[in-house]
Amino acid sequence: MKHLTVTVVGLGLIGGSIARALRPHVQSLYAVDRDQSVLDFAQKQGVIDPAPEDALQRSDVVMLCLYPEASLEFVERHLKDFKSGCILTDAVGVKTPLMKLYHKLKPGFTYIGGHPMAGREVSGFLNATDNMFAGAGFIITPPEDAAEEQIRVVERIAAAIGCRTIIRTTPENHDKIIAYTSQLPHAIATAMCDTPLLVKHKNFTGGSFEDVTRVAKINEDLWTELFIENKAYLIEEIDRFSASLERIKNAVAAGDAEQLRDIMRRVRQDKELIDNA
Amino acid sequence: MKHLTVTVVGLGLIGGSIARALRPHVQSLYAVDRDQSVLDFAQKQGVIDPAPEDALQRSDVVMLCLYPEASLEFVERHLKDFKSGCILTDAVGVKTPLMKLYHKLKPGFTYIGGHPMAGREVSGFLNATDNMFAGAGFIITPPEDAAEEQIRVVERIAAAIGCRTIIRTTPENHDKIIAYTSQLPHAIATAMCDTPLLVKHKNFTGGSFEDVTRVAKINEDLWTELFIENKAYLIEEIDRFSASLERIKNAVAAGDAEQLRDIMRRVRQDKELIDNA
Repeated sequence: MKHLTVTVVGLGLIGGSIARALRPHVQSLYAVDRDQSVLDFAQKQGVIDPAPEDALQRSDVVMLCLYPEASLEFVERHLKDFKSGCILTDAVGVKTPLMKLYHKLKPGFTYIGGHPMAGREVSGFLNATDNMFAGAGFIITPPEDAAEEQIRVVERIAAAIGCRTIIRTTPENHDKIIAYTSQLPHAIATAMCDTPLLVKHKNFTGGSFEDVTRVAKINEDLWTELFIENKAYLIEEIDRFSASLERIKNAVAAGDAEQLRDIMRRVRQDKELIDNA
Repeated sequence: MKHLTVTVVGLGLIGGSIARALRPHVQSLYAVDRDQSVLDFAQKQGVIDPAPEDALQRSDVVMLCLYPEASLEFVERHLKDFKSGCILTDAVGVKTPLMKLYHKLKPGFTYIGGHPMAGREVSGFLNATDNMFAGAGFIITPPEDAAEEQIRVVERIAAAIGCRTIIRTTPENHDKIIAYTSQLPHAIATAMCDTPLLVKHKNFTGGSFEDVTRVAKINEDLWTELFIENKAYLIEEIDRFSASLERIKNAVAAGDAEQLRDIMRRVRQDKELIDNA
């Protein structure tokens, strides 16, 4: 790690937190951002090194911390600027689109997808912290042509920023599961708050309401892209969820206590199982 | 308050926490519970006083901390055992059914509904704490024939157990709002976890999944009763929520980024408004 030159593209909440956590572990850490004042500030803070003109060409690892669409655009625009044999990784919440582009372009770098499983309801470098990923999960989606040593480099970066459980899977499996574990909760929180009752309910809420609605303070630009880029899997999960909620509603409407208790008992037992795992 | 004799009926998580928090503020605190070992233990701990045979007849305030159906049964069975002019209050999460029974029976006590807005995913007296309600909201649903002084007694009890925001409303309004702020989140968390994916997703979850599913570790006996007792309002809220989720799904399916962003922006602004209020 100590010999690596890394460039973080996009110095927002996630890119900034990665830079802060990774800085002590690599030789040089450069950043690219459309906002020069962020780069200046990060450099003054010692989070990044002064970047040479050809920072990308000098980098062993380039880490995209952009929104999904901007990630695709960046790769297409800078296709010739990457060092041959370098590793491109990212922190984008949906993995299939960039992997498809990678297979189409067949560039001189290896794209090994990454997804650190943490975030916050705020954005921007000023909210970035060096412990954002402490104890979090990290998902790696390597292509079939990646060398084991290259995958290990991304794993070491994940460990260096504080991630504890690092697992490998395919981009398709990542996107299917993430539709359930991340996008569905955001869609639900949004629908939950999409009512005039929201601003009238003051003092009628307990912990369950606060928890289910927390992520409704949503970044609409980011999540609009994530939802649409992962359309097929997300729709599957919304349909599955809606069918289950409909079963609960029908049992309530029929006053069918036995069925309601059965559903809740099964769910509670599964939830206890994973919480204790 | 210092002259009051209070009996708590049902020494579980909620009744036990109320007893622990209320004990220093009243003259005598008795408890009724079907489990004698819980009463013995609570008495040994100094949380309750040794109850005389006629504890109910001696009580100025009786506080029902039972499940909804058991509350109705208790009132019917003990109709003759309450002191004339005493206050019956409760901590039951749905207020219309007991108020209907009260108006039907026209008993010698005044029923002033109460609902401390706190809870946990565990149950039983051993999990009870004296700060369960610290800073929580408390909703009071007095009948039209309650004297102001009687309502104030319940308000003082709410303040004594630590509740900070105490508001009065009708049982119908309570049940309508609570369907949205408490029962809908529990139905959603249950539906969210009602899939074989739940136990396969390990390490793919971040904070949003943990938050939205926390209350899926549900008490199936309690919530089955709460859902069915509040059937009409809960179904209304599920329908409203489902229509909103369907709109989000359709916008995703159509790739309509503008509509998705509009929904999310509006929701985010409302959520920021209430979080900062």
